[in-house]
Amino acid sequence: MLLRVAVGKQLRDIRVEQKRSLRDVSSNAQVAVGYLSEVERGQKEISSELLAAVSSALGVSVSTVLSNAASFLAWQERKERQAKADEIAA
Amino acid sequence: MLLRVAVGKQLRDIRVEQKRSLRDVSSNAQVAVGYLSEVERGQKEISSELLAAVSSALGVSVSTVLSNAASFLAWQERKERQAKADEIAA
Repeated sequence: MLLRVAVGKQLRDIRVEQKRSLRDVSSNAQVAVGYLSEVERGQKEISSELLAAVSSALGVSVSTVLSNAASFLAWQERKERQAKADEIAA
Repeated sequence: MLLRVAVGKQLRDIRVEQKRSLRDVSSNAQVAVGYLSEVERGQKEISSELLAAVSSALGVSVSTVLSNAASFLAWQERKERQAKADEIAA
């Protein structure tokens, strides 16, 4: 799993939890709504500056987004390792 | 502090701890040495694919790099908040 997928998922999760629309958050962060949508789906890399702007629009710190993304990635990596081990054992 | 600065610092710290040269890690990860040097100094954004390649060349998982970067960022954010609070109190 790639960094942009993990980060995008966290940004989406936080926004959905706050019951806010893509339009609301993107206009608050001053980024294009289509761009934010692609970032959330892990289809586009987010620049460090825009990650700071979107995090701020969501009222969370960049370190919180990153820490959540790291935990999510670690969980995915464990699953991938397990799947590989199962394949070898089979 | 920006994401790329925090991630670059972690990549550099891990490489230096392993006593490896920029040239060694960059050739192992198949990225240009000048590019890796700029990434380590926080001057260039790293793509998710290249972060995966460099992490693998260093023998660490992306989640480990990210988790370290998140902790470092959280620490910097605390320092920045404290500095602002001190300014207001002064």
